[in-house]
Amino acid sequence: MTAALERTDALAQPMLRAKRLGLHTQHQAVVIMRTDCHVCRSEGLAARSQVLVSTGNREVQATLFQIEGGELIALDEVALSETAWTILGIADGEAVKVTHAPAIESLASVRRRIYGNRLDASAFTAIVKDIVAGRYTDVHLAAFLTAGAALPLDEQETADLTGAMVEVGERMRWDAPIVVDKHCIGGLPGNRTTPIIVAIVAAQGLIMPKTSSRAITSPAGTADTMETLAPVDLDIATLRRVVEAEGGCIAWGGAVHLSPADDIFVRVERELDVDTEGQLIASVLSKKISAGSTHVVIDIPVGPTAKVRSEELAGHLAERMGAVAARFGLTAICLQTDGSQPVGRGIGPALEALDVLAVLQNAGDAPDDLRRRAATLAGAALEIGGKVATGEGTRLALETLSDGRAWAKFEAICEAQGGMRTPPTASNVHPLVAPHAGRIVHIDNRKLARLAKLAGAPEAKAAGVRMDVRLGNEIDKGQPMLHVHAETRAELAYALEYAARSGDIVKVEA
Amino acid sequence: MTAALERTDALAQPMLRAKRLGLHTQHQAVVIMRTDCHVCRSEGLAARSQVLVSTGNREVQATLFQIEGGELIALDEVALSETAWTILGIADGEAVKVTHAPAIESLASVRRRIYGNRLDASAFTAIVKDIVAGRYTDVHLAAFLTAGAALPLDEQETADLTGAMVEVGERMRWDAPIVVDKHCIGGLPGNRTTPIIVAIVAAQGLIMPKTSSRAITSPAGTADTMETLAPVDLDIATLRRVVEAEGGCIAWGGAVHLSPADDIFVRVERELDVDTEGQLIASVLSKKISAGSTHVVIDIPVGPTAKVRSEELAGHLAERMGAVAARFGLTAICLQTDGSQPVGRGIGPALEALDVLAVLQNAGDAPDDLRRRAATLAGAALEIGGKVATGEGTRLALETLSDGRAWAKFEAICEAQGGMRTPPTASNVHPLVAPHAGRIVHIDNRKLARLAKLAGAPEAKAAGVRMDVRLGNEIDKGQPMLHVHAETRAELAYALEYAARSGDIVKVEA
Repeated sequence: MTAALERTDALAQPMLRAKRLGLHTQHQAVVIMRTDCHVCRSEGLAARSQVLVSTGNREVQATLFQIEGGELIALDEVALSETAWTILGIADGEAVKVTHAPAIESLASVRRRIYGNRLDASAFTAIVKDIVAGRYTDVHLAAFLTAGAALPLDEQETADLTGAMVEVGERMRWDAPIVVDKHCIGGLPGNRTTPIIVAIVAAQGLIMPKTSSRAITSPAGTADTMETLAPVDLDIATLRRVVEAEGGCIAWGGAVHLSPADDIFVRVERELDVDTEGQLIASVLSKKISAGSTHVVIDIPVGPTAKVRSEELAGHLAERMGAVAARFGLTAICLQTDGSQPVGRGIGPALEALDVLAVLQNAGDAPDDLRRRAATLAGAALEIGGKVATGEGTRLALETLSDGRAWAKFEAICEAQGGMRTPPTASNVHPLVAPHAGRIVHIDNRKLARLAKLAGAPEAKAAGVRMDVRLGNEIDKGQPMLHVHAETRAELAYALEYAARSGDIVKVEA
Repeated sequence: MTAALERTDALAQPMLRAKRLGLHTQHQAVVIMRTDCHVCRSEGLAARSQVLVSTGNREVQATLFQIEGGELIALDEVALSETAWTILGIADGEAVKVTHAPAIESLASVRRRIYGNRLDASAFTAIVKDIVAGRYTDVHLAAFLTAGAALPLDEQETADLTGAMVEVGERMRWDAPIVVDKHCIGGLPGNRTTPIIVAIVAAQGLIMPKTSSRAITSPAGTADTMETLAPVDLDIATLRRVVEAEGGCIAWGGAVHLSPADDIFVRVERELDVDTEGQLIASVLSKKISAGSTHVVIDIPVGPTAKVRSEELAGHLAERMGAVAARFGLTAICLQTDGSQPVGRGIGPALEALDVLAVLQNAGDAPDDLRRRAATLAGAALEIGGKVATGEGTRLALETLSDGRAWAKFEAICEAQGGMRTPPTASNVHPLVAPHAGRIVHIDNRKLARLAKLAGAPEAKAAGVRMDVRLGNEIDKGQPMLHVHAETRAELAYALEYAARSGDIVKVEA
């Protein structure tokens, strides 16, 4: 009888005191309860159960771990990881309710998709809502993304996924008829044109509220690079204030919740090192639509070791991108650019930021390829934004750089975002030298990216690779081809070990 | 200089003292270190990094969580979850080394498979080795399984995966020319023939070292059911001793490491609620081959809500199963059986065990359908095992049941496995009654299985469903069609709530 009564009470009151553990688990919400806790017994909860922790009108789904006895957690307590704690927004000791997480109905659609059926808009909306609410485990997320890689999303599905991703996030509206944006389909190390383009375009009076992502599978995303120059975790109010004052910004998309699903997809894609056309288009366009853009310039670098390897593939991507964008009233133009070698000298957040600064400041040693690419793309934005006649954009962009207006605008934007920063430098730097004299005939972008990542990028901001050569250069035996930068000796050793066994990263023909 | 020196020391000695935390995380190996620990800093480790913890010749790959300050973990300590602790097999305070987990080369093959390329034997071997070594995260595991569901494994791939799964586990050899086995392709609630078949076949003098799995997506696997009657976590030495003494056993496959990869796949498939033909065949055959079987009888229940829904699909599965088995010198015969309704009365570990006992003990109310199915399958095993002429197997099997030899053998096997147990009973039982008078015209196996799972099966051994009706029965309004059994009131409520909203689980035609 006593046991039965206790169970009834527990059922009526599955309440526990919340305890903040200071446990960092990245995105994953984790809670820890005692194995012998009455709620675990009455609810039938076991280790790795998915639980729902709720208080008032807030709730978080979390993975349960259990601990045997000890003094860390009392019988009537539930300890929360920082992620769970932040989502719930509670105080230490506050009462929370812990129950089984409800069944996830949208997984039936994921299963149908795995078995080769197409999904409709309502299915994508249900899936994306559950994902953003934190209801999908890593297993569910990986299955959804893999299904869309194995059987690629068609145009309708891509549009529906895009729409669903827009729907679950915030959406900005601007008091301007034209709002321009740009995006680069990654895969080309060091291609950090965005901060330069925003500075040019905003200096010419167009509105460009740019949000960028962190790296997916590359050593640095624009947000990672920009973060070494100014704060990028802007909330929507701050972002709006910056854009209203300066005409442009360079913010991290995840912090403004414009497409919150995207950051979750990005994390899983990074762990898998896989990304696909449909997901890519939905990712790019959902951010642009949410940001209130009307016109977007898309840079597609093409090269044998770039993300897009042929003009044909680039053409298909451009066509699909334009068609899906048009469904949302967005004008997207795609430019195919040279993707045969890295852009600028740096690869990695801080090293790329130094290249950006050199171009903006008209430094004598500024990388000319980065300057020209940025000017071409900024020129296209100025043209579709109606600031200059077709064919005149690049010239105006270069002029805006050389007369210092772009640099002044960039400084103003950084100040508005919270203050300009000096990029950090690495304390462990080591050259890779030419094995013999000759000419640089090939640079493997993928291996370079891998090398920079093993050195610690993008998490270690100062880490990465600095190129000393470009395609066609003549080089002597023993002369450095590049330098590896790392924040720790362990990471430097890790990267150099990879360089030693990975074959030619930079190929020298005698 | 000091910082640099500290880093050098840390690089030379990334050693920490191991602390046992008593943390239960199911299969997942987790370690917790301080955010400000010198190893985290020198190695560049962040929350959710995959780390390698090693000592002497043992190592475990684990997910890192970090904790801020506090007294739980000292700066020079690393706390280990029980899973990690068990794999390392160390003592509290022992020194362990913590580094970045190495890159996983076999993921390149997983990516190729996602993009539609077939894999060869060496690729499957590398993947399965890494999986069994615990190197794949949930994201990697789910991607691998989903890729093989979206583009199904072909015969060669299925054979190669089977071979890889056999290779990484233990393999038994028996001093007998014929070793028989049986398997049921799940999907039919309550179809618990295995303990009965083993008892009959062993009573007739054949060798039948049966290993079974736990539930994948069903409310009970044979191992779950058998565990309520006797211990099933037998190591290989114990299993061999039981079989040498009694001719047969019913053990959990995972405990004997015959196909360790399978238990990992099963866990992920359960979380996804997805299973596929290729994976299914590799799962079944890898266990049979590892167990040293020469002949296997496979039960394929076919019905509109069974796992296999048509004779055509069953035929394809039988053909593929036979062809792959033959490559390993194994004779596999498949029997298509009636899958239109549950077998016996119980659904759930203990409830199914009670049906098994009733059949073996020749109880007056023993479910006849279970008795006949078991006799048919045991008869086929006796025939292919050469104990009786073709067509005479079922008769001999029924005779072995009715004369008590099967029950005596079953008791002896249970004793040899560690002692017979009495299945537990549930304290929360509630009927689902007929909404009106009529005839039972349809039983939805999938909804029944879902109902039993929501009631707590298979984790809660006593939980599940007990059927009061069969197809064709006449029933009065308000008369029970089935009873839901749960160990806790919360789970009972959860199951009843599902029953109320799920439409007809049992359909009564007026």
